[in-house]
Amino acid sequence: MGLPDDCKVNLRAKFPKGKKNLITDVSGVKVGHVTLKDEDKNIHTGVTAILPHGGSLFQQKVMAGTCVINGFGKSAGLLQIDELGTVETPILMTNTLSVGTALNALSKYMLEHNQDIGVSTGTVNCVVTECNDGELNDIRGFHVKEQHILQALAVAGENFAEGDVGAGTGMCCMGLKGGIGSASRVISCNDKDYTIGALLLSNFGIGGNLRIDGKLIETELEKKPEKGSVIVVIGTDLPLSDRQLKRVAKRAVVGLARVGSFLGNGSGDIAIAFSNGNIIPHYSEEDILETKMLHDNAMDKIFEGTAEAVEEAVISSLYHAGTVKGIRGKVIRGLSEYL
Amino acid sequence: MGLPDDCKVNLRAKFPKGKKNLITDVSGVKVGHVTLKDEDKNIHTGVTAILPHGGSLFQQKVMAGTCVINGFGKSAGLLQIDELGTVETPILMTNTLSVGTALNALSKYMLEHNQDIGVSTGTVNCVVTECNDGELNDIRGFHVKEQHILQALAVAGENFAEGDVGAGTGMCCMGLKGGIGSASRVISCNDKDYTIGALLLSNFGIGGNLRIDGKLIETELEKKPEKGSVIVVIGTDLPLSDRQLKRVAKRAVVGLARVGSFLGNGSGDIAIAFSNGNIIPHYSEEDILETKMLHDNAMDKIFEGTAEAVEEAVISSLYHAGTVKGIRGKVIRGLSEYL
Amino acid sequence: MGLPDDCKVNLRAKFPKGKKNLITDVSGVKVGHVTLKDEDKNIHTGVTAILPHGGSLFQQKVMAGTCVINGFGKSAGLLQIDELGTVETPILMTNTLSVGTALNALSKYMLEHNQDIGVSTGTVNCVVTECNDGELNDIRGFHVKEQHILQALAVAGENFAEGDVGAGTGMCCMGLKGGIGSASRVISCNDKDYTIGALLLSNFGIGGNLRIDGKLIETELEKKPEKGSVIVVIGTDLPLSDRQLKRVAKRAVVGLARVGSFLGNGSGDIAIAFSNGNIIPHYSEEDILETKMLHDNAMDKIFEGTAEAVEEAVISSLYHAGTVKGIRGKVIRGLSEYL
Amino acid sequence: MGLPDDCKVNLRAKFPKGKKNLITDVSGVKVGHVTLKDEDKNIHTGVTAILPHGGSLFQQKVMAGTCVINGFGKSAGLLQIDELGTVETPILMTNTLSVGTALNALSKYMLEHNQDIGVSTGTVNCVVTECNDGELNDIRGFHVKEQHILQALAVAGENFAEGDVGAGTGMCCMGLKGGIGSASRVISCNDKDYTIGALLLSNFGIGGNLRIDGKLIETELEKKPEKGSVIVVIGTDLPLSDRQLKRVAKRAVVGLARVGSFLGNGSGDIAIAFSNGNIIPHYSEEDILETKMLHDNAMDKIFEGTAEAVEEAVISSLYHAGTVKGIRGKVIRGLSEYL
Repeated sequence: MGLPDDCKVNLRAKFPKGKKNLITDVSGVKVGHVTLKDEDKNIHTGVTAILPHGGSLFQQKVMAGTCVINGFGKSAGLLQIDELGTVETPILMTNTLSVGTALNALSKYMLEHNQDIGVSTGTVNCVVTECNDGELNDIRGFHVKEQHILQALAVAGENFAEGDVGAGTGMCCMGLKGGIGSASRVISCNDKDYTIGALLLSNFGIGGNLRIDGKLIETELEKKPEKGSVIVVIGTDLPLSDRQLKRVAKRAVVGLARVGSFLGNGSGDIAIAFSNGNIIPHYSEEDILETKMLHDNAMDKIFEGTAEAVEEAVISSLYHAGTVKGIRGKVIRGLSEYL
Repeated sequence: MGLPDDCKVNLRAKFPKGKKNLITDVSGVKVGHVTLKDEDKNIHTGVTAILPHGGSLFQQKVMAGTCVINGFGKSAGLLQIDELGTVETPILMTNTLSVGTALNALSKYMLEHNQDIGVSTGTVNCVVTECNDGELNDIRGFHVKEQHILQALAVAGENFAEGDVGAGTGMCCMGLKGGIGSASRVISCNDKDYTIGALLLSNFGIGGNLRIDGKLIETELEKKPEKGSVIVVIGTDLPLSDRQLKRVAKRAVVGLARVGSFLGNGSGDIAIAFSNGNIIPHYSEEDILETKMLHDNAMDKIFEGTAEAVEEAVISSLYHAGTVKGIRGKVIRGLSEYL
Repeated sequence: MGLPDDCKVNLRAKFPKGKKNLITDVSGVKVGHVTLKDEDKNIHTGVTAILPHGGSLFQQKVMAGTCVINGFGKSAGLLQIDELGTVETPILMTNTLSVGTALNALSKYMLEHNQDIGVSTGTVNCVVTECNDGELNDIRGFHVKEQHILQALAVAGENFAEGDVGAGTGMCCMGLKGGIGSASRVISCNDKDYTIGALLLSNFGIGGNLRIDGKLIETELEKKPEKGSVIVVIGTDLPLSDRQLKRVAKRAVVGLARVGSFLGNGSGDIAIAFSNGNIIPHYSEEDILETKMLHDNAMDKIFEGTAEAVEEAVISSLYHAGTVKGIRGKVIRGLSEYL
Repeated sequence: MGLPDDCKVNLRAKFPKGKKNLITDVSGVKVGHVTLKDEDKNIHTGVTAILPHGGSLFQQKVMAGTCVINGFGKSAGLLQIDELGTVETPILMTNTLSVGTALNALSKYMLEHNQDIGVSTGTVNCVVTECNDGELNDIRGFHVKEQHILQALAVAGENFAEGDVGAGTGMCCMGLKGGIGSASRVISCNDKDYTIGALLLSNFGIGGNLRIDGKLIETELEKKPEKGSVIVVIGTDLPLSDRQLKRVAKRAVVGLARVGSFLGNGSGDIAIAFSNGNIIPHYSEEDILETKMLHDNAMDKIFEGTAEAVEEAVISSLYHAGTVKGIRGKVIRGLSEYL
């Protein structure tokens, strides 16, 4: 839902928000969470799955582009997105040490749904992203299991929670409880409306630096270096080319900087943008495909809308997160409680 | 001088400012301007030269890294910085259509000072950056001549003006008069002080988006796309490696985003960072060189200081610029007058 | 003409050669040379201009991609090709120290033909590439003048010479006389024929390493490091996307390696690929453009054809070049004479 | 052992070979294989582990650089190498669908040996590379288990087999049986000897294109597109910087092209270069570290030696591999038998 209109925190919005103010305002996009939470066992982790459209992603790939804002991260699958300009699986988010388990589960899921993979066609490029939730979660415990990945994929829908849920369960951001945040904007091109949606996993920044709509929020100053990260997924139905989606992914940084990030050394800041308005089939009888792109001169509103959606998604991730007591007695406060 | 302490605009500074609050606080760095201004002839342009140190740059190269934030630009010399991690000439700033003239003049200057170039050794990689000042300047008139480049190099010193001077004479930024801005920060590593300085040529952004210390400034909203750009040069005496300088250059975007940029399509946003604390000799009897680098875990303060210096340098470029009447009757107001 | 069928050197060709076996087999492409040669004054240099199509390139841009194989080079204009995926001017080749002059002349040429540049629209991204011909040419003499650039543009046509002509006049390659080489291949997609053409400026490699069709040619072993470079331009009428053209540009290296290059430190090895089968208009009433691309699964023949054309173009540049006596008494032999 | 001196295939070698002609000629480097082979169950797969030095890699990281020659691949861990210029774990090779299992096993191995990971310090960047062995192996069966990864790490030593062993068990290359190949070269800098070693997993190219020392080998022409890949690991004791190691990694392509690769669309071609002569400590009391680098003007012999070692390593991978009968009755012949 992003930030509700009547909430305590306000951000300037130049562009109209989508109906749900979520990435799922982009038609076809679905999101599913599995939240693993057991305070006694110091488990504060989970999985979030983003499905760029509701059909077979392997058969009908979405165009995509990435931006490695800061490469201190362990996400898998980005190389091939860069080379081929497509995403062919759901995009997973989880904790850093669960990337292997997520790859295994997602591979098996894709193989089950595509009997040609590894037989008559090549393999599959699973996209798994991560942040380190070890500040609150017993990350060494490897609590995410393959079944949790499959469950997140199974429950994916148009409505989903934000804050300390799914992959965001154990994340911290700007000295407060972070997690999952989302927002969307509606952009007109030639009198037709298109939607840009952002969903992110916020785990970056240090206390004392948070800004909401530019205004510094007086939280306790953290002295220690951040060990966080942020994963930003941007979806749209606007038919952008892979190069243009890379340009869009690059603008995620604007939203991050506005809320107070300085792109810390230890923060693996990754953005992935996809368009389900430009589909590349796995098999094609025609060698030459018809595609669409936006004239680059019309990109400014897309860039500005993206920056806005990302900025709101960060604040929304904080706004919807409650105070959490994690491993080693660490307490991280939620923004709403804090304010 | 960056922003004077008692001026009308204030920015939070976590790190102490350098003595002059200019890039020339980095020991050895010099800056020179040539300003070409003739309102009757619609000439509002010029040249700015940055010398990373006072000796022979070709013989004693400085380590360097670049970041192409948005590549809608025509700067020359970046490829080789990326490959070899060094800058071996002064860095020039001028208008877009004067890059050729600047290359010619700088090449001749380097040849005159290095009789080996093109004879017993290779050629030289001249670094020339640019923004489009055609909004105010008769850019089609090619008013920058080779002598102006040489003059900017000749007058370079530790003190220099900001605002509508040098290459900044005809630039616009965030709907106001832009130009040259600079600021510096002092950072401690193992109890020793080092300086990070930023100098930039601001010509980016659209009216209605400017933020000072996060607060939105009510300027007139521009509807047309920006055709601007920004060149950010960051210098330091801290011995960073070329990879680390690229990381520093990448953080320029944080300062730009904070003042209201969304990295518009038409804006060629380029950052170059150099360290004169790490010198690579052109000739060396030893194949293996001793160099230094910062432990990456200590980079956070460098990144945050860089973001701060860049943010202040943008605002300083606006603060020091007067109102200008340019070609086609276009009037652009200075921030100080505006406030 | 590439290598004539009855010549002394033979290369395996899997794909049929184009009619002229030149880059101009790609419909619409034109090439022009200006050769500056005066042995008494040690002048061995020139200009080569490649026009991706015969119309207004600024109004009707061609899709393009680049590959910086080794960035020890001073070419201008690559940044914007990467960002926007288009070339909007002729592509120039000249000597390293003439890039400034070429930029000036090409800028003026573009301004003359496009009165909107710098007034009602932005500036123009001139593409100027270079190699260092200082081994034979008095490169410090700046013998290329703006008029030579304009002349190369004016004389461009479908037929052009190879070897020691145009920008190739003073170049050396693999210990022999290098220069301009070209070749083309015809590729079928869905029963329709398309052409891939390569034109290159060969100035790379060291003596003793040359291989023709894999066979080592016994030339004198050079001990000194190369100070050369190579510029490879690949054109096609196949509608490839900018990402795909970058992939094609990346395959130039295969042809270079096959003839004996190890991508030496001092060699600025740059490839640019364009398709005049995918046109992007400068102005468009429609925000959303229809474009085409090849299914990536059909790229193998394009890649292999490119490698073949580039390999032949190198050997052709050697084959067509005569023995030259240059500055400081340096004599470089032509391959045909040598064999 | 690379190619034995008296074998049927010969390659020109400009540089002396190391004692074992293996990557383990680089002091400290160890390699271990686990081979999984059961023809009845169509299992032809395995694991290869490369240890850049014998100590704690997490505590004493090696400088490193990567090159994504063609990004149609699923390797994990490259992003962080690029950002930080270091490798902090063993480098694993396995089949594409086993990357998840390898990540899990390697993560647990690193956690067991470093109790601080995920508690008082950040996580760990596991480097896992892959090729698709589905042509011969029942890749959908996920036959590589975590214990196999640990075993490959445990058995690593200075002597190791080449050909159809370890991760190379099920790989095909240039229409023949591929797999693991290695070779090394000795390079002198200032009268001191250093070693460059290559180890690769060859699974690329198509039948009919193989060249040995440039000479075309008449194998059966494959018409179908390659679904292969190649992973090249280059190690040295020469103190190269991360930027220089990236330059070295980029030269792997020269060796690949010489044996007949055209960098096919479906081939995930990845190179990683590391130096154990430049160590970066995980913890350091000093912010500023002393490092070394080669003067870039001395790089040519490193580049040429790398190209040579990679070329020989490919041929060696073919030479040592026997004929294999795989899944779906597919028979792939070994080069030695073929010749």
